[in-house]
Amino acid sequence: MITSLNPDERLDDLQRDGYKLIQNTKIFCFGMDAVLLSAFTRVTEGEKVLDLGTGNGVIPILLKARTKGGHFTGLEIQDINVDMAERSVCYNHLEDFIDIVKGDIKEASSIFGGASFDVVTTNPPYMNENHGLQNPENHKAIARHEILCTLEDVVREGAKVLKPGGRFFMVHRPQRMVEIFEVMRKYGLEPKRIRLVHPYANKPANMVLIEGVRGGRPQLTVEEPLIIYTSPGKYSEEVINLYEK
Amino acid sequence: MITSLNPDERLDDLQRDGYKLIQNTKIFCFGMDAVLLSAFTRVTEGEKVLDLGTGNGVIPILLKARTKGGHFTGLEIQDINVDMAERSVCYNHLEDFIDIVKGDIKEASSIFGGASFDVVTTNPPYMNENHGLQNPENHKAIARHEILCTLEDVVREGAKVLKPGGRFFMVHRPQRMVEIFEVMRKYGLEPKRIRLVHPYANKPANMVLIEGVRGGRPQLTVEEPLIIYTSPGKYSEEVINLYEK
Repeated sequence: MITSLNPDERLDDLQRDGYKLIQNTKIFCFGMDAVLLSAFTRVTEGEKVLDLGTGNGVIPILLKARTKGGHFTGLEIQDINVDMAERSVCYNHLEDFIDIVKGDIKEASSIFGGASFDVVTTNPPYMNENHGLQNPENHKAIARHEILCTLEDVVREGAKVLKPGGRFFMVHRPQRMVEIFEVMRKYGLEPKRIRLVHPYANKPANMVLIEGVRGGRPQLTVEEPLIIYTSPGKYSEEVINLYEK
Repeated sequence: MITSLNPDERLDDLQRDGYKLIQNTKIFCFGMDAVLLSAFTRVTEGEKVLDLGTGNGVIPILLKARTKGGHFTGLEIQDINVDMAERSVCYNHLEDFIDIVKGDIKEASSIFGGASFDVVTTNPPYMNENHGLQNPENHKAIARHEILCTLEDVVREGAKVLKPGGRFFMVHRPQRMVEIFEVMRKYGLEPKRIRLVHPYANKPANMVLIEGVRGGRPQLTVEEPLIIYTSPGKYSEEVINLYEK
């Protein structure tokens, strides 16, 4: 059935409309972050969606399965990821719905033009410590550390490519939430809705899901907390439903 | 025992070291907000604490009971509250530990001088809509709406009266969290720790507790969510412990 799995690659079942995803275990496999972000993202019928830094393309494929969005584009800078994402799109026969574009997040608004999308999603690198020390050939480091783009690059380009009233959805670390809000406001993306993700109900949050609206009115909703585990190894009902429904 | 309860006043048991509080049911009685703020506030031995907009003095009295702080000052602009707070201090024989000062939050740094406190607490008015329309004689409106002071006034004066490294503790509405972070950073108070308060585990937050540090390094901790009710009318164990322990 599939003719082109390379060494270190595997084919994972996304449990969504039968879609499968090619991943390379030496690079960066999608995690809970991508699943939670795609569940948090609201796309209505016919909308155009751009995923900034799409990696192996998991978010466009999950959003195609979950929503009635009209078209999805994934922008990715690393050749090895672009190749994998394109093969996953072909494997799932989604060529009419998903484009994978090779390019730099820092140039997204030049590549696509301003005000050209209804929705932007992004699961950017979280870490900004010592980023000058990372090896730029390390594919995992590029996904995790701000080596090739910063938070500000992602937010600025996301704001530019969104239409007025367009929505920006991001997953990030709560440790950087103050900076995230500041940078979003700087580029005219008003934070409107957040959800904190806690590993357990009695532990600090380790992820935050954020929705911003280009030109939105200030008024933030902090939704109910999302709890991952009820006890060690046992997912909460909400997380089980995310994977099974 | 008590000689001076005025009409509409009542004497409430704070369930802390036997302390009692005089409240006027026509004005503004302390609520969950004040109890949660005093539990969230960390005061170490001998520290000097200022409560901005102390109302009937509930926060200094609760903090005196809960902590080993050295001295507590409550600043309040409304005569009727200053009078009640002073009588509560006397009733509890706390004159050596708590001062109630009549004055305007907007002038706090002139009244007390800069860098004069280790800790600032505040439960300021939450609402900034239509504040020009409120009756300035309405004591409840002054406590709830930004009639006599704004969020920016409270944060600016709080930052000025704090020593470098001093801590600022505030309870507010999560709807204004983006603005709160922005204003705090503007005046050099870095948000370091927050806790979202949800009426139920599956409902949006309706309060946020915030700790900022004057001159602190950026890095936010979002603590475990605080849930008020487990079912209608039934407090969570944490809330029961707040009142009973």
